[in-house]
Amino acid sequence: MPTKEEIIDFLVQQFPQNRCVIDAVGDGAAIVTHHVDHAHLRPGGTVSGPLLMTVADIAIYIAILGTIGIVPLAVTTSLTINFLRKPIADKAIVGNCKLIKVGRSLIVGEVSLHSIGSDAMVAHAVGTYSVPYETGIP
Amino acid sequence: MPTKEEIIDFLVQQFPQNRCVIDAVGDGAAIVTHHVDHAHLRPGGTVSGPLLMTVADIAIYIAILGTIGIVPLAVTTSLTINFLRKPIADKAIVGNCKLIKVGRSLIVGEVSLHSIGSDAMVAHAVGTYSVPYETGIP
Amino acid sequence: MPTKEEIIDFLVQQFPQNRCVIDAVGDGAAIVTHHVDHAHLRPGGTVSGPLLMTVADIAIYIAILGTIGIVPLAVTTSLTINFLRKPIADKAIVGNCKLIKVGRSLIVGEVSLHSIGSDAMVAHAVGTYSVPYETGIP
Amino acid sequence: MPTKEEIIDFLVQQFPQNRCVIDAVGDGAAIVTHHVDHAHLRPGGTVSGPLLMTVADIAIYIAILGTIGIVPLAVTTSLTINFLRKPIADKAIVGNCKLIKVGRSLIVGEVSLHSIGSDAMVAHAVGTYSVPYETGIP
Repeated sequence: MPTKEEIIDFLVQQFPQNRCVIDAVGDGAAIVTHHVDHAHLRPGGTVSGPLLMTVADIAIYIAILGTIGIVPLAVTTSLTINFLRKPIADKAIVGNCKLIKVGRSLIVGEVSLHSIGSDAMVAHAVGTYSVPYETGIP
Repeated sequence: MPTKEEIIDFLVQQFPQNRCVIDAVGDGAAIVTHHVDHAHLRPGGTVSGPLLMTVADIAIYIAILGTIGIVPLAVTTSLTINFLRKPIADKAIVGNCKLIKVGRSLIVGEVSLHSIGSDAMVAHAVGTYSVPYETGIP
Repeated sequence: MPTKEEIIDFLVQQFPQNRCVIDAVGDGAAIVTHHVDHAHLRPGGTVSGPLLMTVADIAIYIAILGTIGIVPLAVTTSLTINFLRKPIADKAIVGNCKLIKVGRSLIVGEVSLHSIGSDAMVAHAVGTYSVPYETGIP
Repeated sequence: MPTKEEIIDFLVQQFPQNRCVIDAVGDGAAIVTHHVDHAHLRPGGTVSGPLLMTVADIAIYIAILGTIGIVPLAVTTSLTINFLRKPIADKAIVGNCKLIKVGRSLIVGEVSLHSIGSDAMVAHAVGTYSVPYETGIP
């Protein structure tokens, strides 16, 4: 399976819009962090929902790359997110993903999202990726 | 209820990060459009999932403002999105929201997302907003 | 594609636990009805959530059978349901499904649920079925 | 907070249709079990999706009763379930719920579902209940 460095290289080349930093990846899991600045805030000092969705989506993608190898054609088929608490306005968002199914063509990951330095879950997401048939693990 | 122009004014003042244009709003519904440029594309020329989620989230928010009045404290509590087809890479994304429940404190909207100029639904979302108690309509 | 009668025959043989009646099926859509009796009620005279989920799940399944043919191995991979209003306690529940994606291996349907004789949507569901690869329609 | 026995008494009186057994409840969590018999099976020997949804829904309800007290008017507002693996056909289904948000009016729980005696997660659910305003915990 690819190392964290190989995944970072792939992202830099193929996905330059990515702003998430990979903290850890492997064993069906990944942890990623996204900084928060003024552009990500909403009225009331809240971190925008779409930023949280982005972090959840990327966390699952990184966990997949680290589990089945670098599969450029993995695509999100669905994502459900529940917003639980107001994140801390000026803190980075951490997404902690565990894959709960790695099938032949569908992979499902669960993500808990936190403000860095806090244990309180600010959002919870479950997302499904489709990978080219038989790329996944039966 | 506020006019489209009053909602646009509110967004410009309170939510300057917004990049969605309001095409129509009223009667428990809204249509919004978001341009797509290179920064929104993913490997393979796909419009990013988070952009589609953003459009869905904003479409529901605008429909709410047009239905119960300008409520700055409306917050998303959950969003489920299904990605159905690859959007056209260089076309704006249109989100068409209908509110399916307007309760005293919870409002639920359904959104179909299309590439502009095409009828094919590229994604479908359902989201819930919480509004301050008794702000909604019993 | 199979007729309504052929689908009913299949269900009687292969899925005798089914209690939904097929009102209509075809063209990527289906309408089904489930009676409600005391066993389906919850405290406060509410129709149970699981009954509504059952109707949503079956409505999608019937729409699939009518669209790609009788595929016994279609399985639900995910379902999201939002409960919107209290159903009428002693009225049957009608599920009205439209398929919004018919892919090679994933099919997504959207369902609105009503009490019979009422227009008010009591719940809304979106569900995904997986069908054996290449059984679906590219 | 109510004991397990008090919750069981409440269910017997108010919710006699319930078929889930409470294994444990308290501290924002609950474990419940539902037997599986022929009526719950689908073509291919699969436990029906609606049974799994029922167990998820009840597990969250029990966790709520054990956390905020016996609140008859708690109602499910949404549920998302992902089906991950085929359950073992003749084994009871166990639902293990943790509440991830206990708010003033909205409570969110996450549930993992297993066949009894197996560690493999067969389904994962996230559900939201609405409780009468200020019944929850701020």
